[in-house]
Amino acid sequence: MNPAHPREWAELETPVLLVEPAPLARNLARMQARATELGVRLRPHVKTHKSLALWRRQEALGARGITVSTLAEADHFFAHGVSDVLYAACIAPAKLAHALRLRQAGCALTVLVDSVASATAVAEGARAAGQRLEVALEIDTDDHRAGLKPDARELTEVAAALDGPGTHLWGVLTHAGGSYALAEPAALRACAERERAGCVEAAQRLRAAGHECREVSVGSTPTALAATSLAGVTELRAGVYVFHDLVMLGLGVCTREELALSVLTSVTGHQREKGWVLVDAGWMALSRDRGTAAQARDHGYGAVCTLDGRWLEELSFRDANQEHGILVAEPALDVARRFPLGTLLRILPNHACATAAAFPRYVLLDERGHPTSEAWERLNGW
Amino acid sequence: MNPAHPREWAELETPVLLVEPAPLARNLARMQARATELGVRLRPHVKTHKSLALWRRQEALGARGITVSTLAEADHFFAHGVSDVLYAACIAPAKLAHALRLRQAGCALTVLVDSVASATAVAEGARAAGQRLEVALEIDTDDHRAGLKPDARELTEVAAALDGPGTHLWGVLTHAGGSYALAEPAALRACAERERAGCVEAAQRLRAAGHECREVSVGSTPTALAATSLAGVTELRAGVYVFHDLVMLGLGVCTREELALSVLTSVTGHQREKGWVLVDAGWMALSRDRGTAAQARDHGYGAVCTLDGRWLEELSFRDANQEHGILVAEPALDVARRFPLGTLLRILPNHACATAAAFPRYVLLDERGHPTSEAWERLNGW
Repeated sequence: MNPAHPREWAELETPVLLVEPAPLARNLARMQARATELGVRLRPHVKTHKSLALWRRQEALGARGITVSTLAEADHFFAHGVSDVLYAACIAPAKLAHALRLRQAGCALTVLVDSVASATAVAEGARAAGQRLEVALEIDTDDHRAGLKPDARELTEVAAALDGPGTHLWGVLTHAGGSYALAEPAALRACAERERAGCVEAAQRLRAAGHECREVSVGSTPTALAATSLAGVTELRAGVYVFHDLVMLGLGVCTREELALSVLTSVTGHQREKGWVLVDAGWMALSRDRGTAAQARDHGYGAVCTLDGRWLEELSFRDANQEHGILVAEPALDVARRFPLGTLLRILPNHACATAAAFPRYVLLDERGHPTSEAWERLNGW
Repeated sequence: MNPAHPREWAELETPVLLVEPAPLARNLARMQARATELGVRLRPHVKTHKSLALWRRQEALGARGITVSTLAEADHFFAHGVSDVLYAACIAPAKLAHALRLRQAGCALTVLVDSVASATAVAEGARAAGQRLEVALEIDTDDHRAGLKPDARELTEVAAALDGPGTHLWGVLTHAGGSYALAEPAALRACAERERAGCVEAAQRLRAAGHECREVSVGSTPTALAATSLAGVTELRAGVYVFHDLVMLGLGVCTREELALSVLTSVTGHQREKGWVLVDAGWMALSRDRGTAAQARDHGYGAVCTLDGRWLEELSFRDANQEHGILVAEPALDVARRFPLGTLLRILPNHACATAAAFPRYVLLDERGHPTSEAWERLNGW
């Protein structure tokens, strides 16, 4: 790759997805330090960034293996040499053939199940194909989605169903997604401890029943940053920490200075009497995610900043159409004078995973906050 | 292209975006018949489908020219021979060079402005480049977004700013986006009439001031279907009518039988005691659009149907994570028996434009509702 060279703002056709290098570097280092300090492997969830360049940064700092949310991500990263892949969504039986193809090609893919029905389907499919799959068992530690309870009777039945020629129990996995609804440090610490304790309990029950259960995998960005001990855990998964976003800010797990992702947008017009500033970033660019709506501070469709990252508290991102954003100013402001046609603004997203998914690539800023020629491609779709 | 051949459901790796041919054909024919009956040209908004194959269907029925929401759409369709392109979002000054490149290459591109500042920027840029651009003037007929009021003093000033060597006033354009918040036929008819009357009034004021103002362009799917007269209008724009969606259903402008778009998903697990069915379509596939939340019937993240399109009223699409959907059943239902692991379901989206944008292509069903090998690529991003 050619070295990045500076670009002019005017060369970028809005909307554009921007990454700031300093917060990115701090976020990457902070999570790796956490994992190291807590004595576990960091296996980043690439569903947030879906970018090889970003994974290389994580790997260089010590991350080992990736977590994916789709088999398309597994294909993409494996095609570029990443072979330790954990597919952390319970597999639909019809996707088993795809998983087996990856395994056959040399990808050390681990799939996930949370029922005897699913374990049996995977075991039979793998055996019929003459393959052997590593299989993780999902544990439900906070009632928010999939998985078996640590004390569920079915736990050992699933492990038994995996005890055959086609499958091997890799370990147990949980995701404390419920942490996204908490905002008190004490509540987040308690959630992280429930996540750890529940997953370790499940592993111990399996081991007591004679199963190997090598891995104990936990994680979500809020609990990873709140945990005080990961005793008994072998790896930590987290995704959104790379960029952070307004939802994470609202949870108190990052500061404004750690928000690394923003959408560059242009002012395309005004409704002066109403104090409206119209911009060319709508819900297509920012997503319809209103994750801060239920938090103490509701940021609408995003927080509005100047080009150099200063928050414009006087503007609220009130509404979004497909390619239009409507920013509303405090009453006294003459919006057309203050933010003339063509003014460039940056919008911090509510949810980095959802906003990034609209874009084909990230444009990297330099240390002074100016755009560069360096762009990181990202995968989208299935 | 090879003729489409039947495929098995099991060949599709979920989530997949499906199009049903019969409602699609009816929707396309109905809107074209409306335009013909009302005596205006139909210029479809391709921001919904972003698909050449779909545009060809519209063109074959009589549509003339396209409306786009981004210059990326203009590039894509022009590269495939579509040259009559209306870019219906007020242009940011930094995009003028791009618009001029399209014009220079032979694209009959019309751009949009709604202020003297914008008209002046376009006129000066085009003149400096030695080009001539067609420019439409946006009129605000329902207070919902951009545009000048029909009686605004600035109207004739904008037209005057366009009266030079670089620009030519193409006409006036309005979009009654406020119609999305209405649900009574009488209210929609009144909204359509305000849209028509306001845009025609603006055109007449411009003509009275000596400007040509050839085109009078109106449209939104709800008002296009509700209008009883388009006297004085030259063209109709509409986008989502191609597929319709649950928001349109809630507005009463389509029936269930006209919903042409759905997302195929697989059951990946259950939480039996809670009556939850987990599926592999989350917000990444369906979008975070909760457009029916404010309507009389809130469909959550979508309406759940069987493979053959029968509505499963007993399941609600309660919550969505990135690649997980949580469907909640009526209390008495044994979800694991009724919807076993691997069951295929179809989800009707709240908002077709947002859901389709997550996918690279549409898979066409045949007349019996079975999948075919025919897939229509779509454009995403900028």
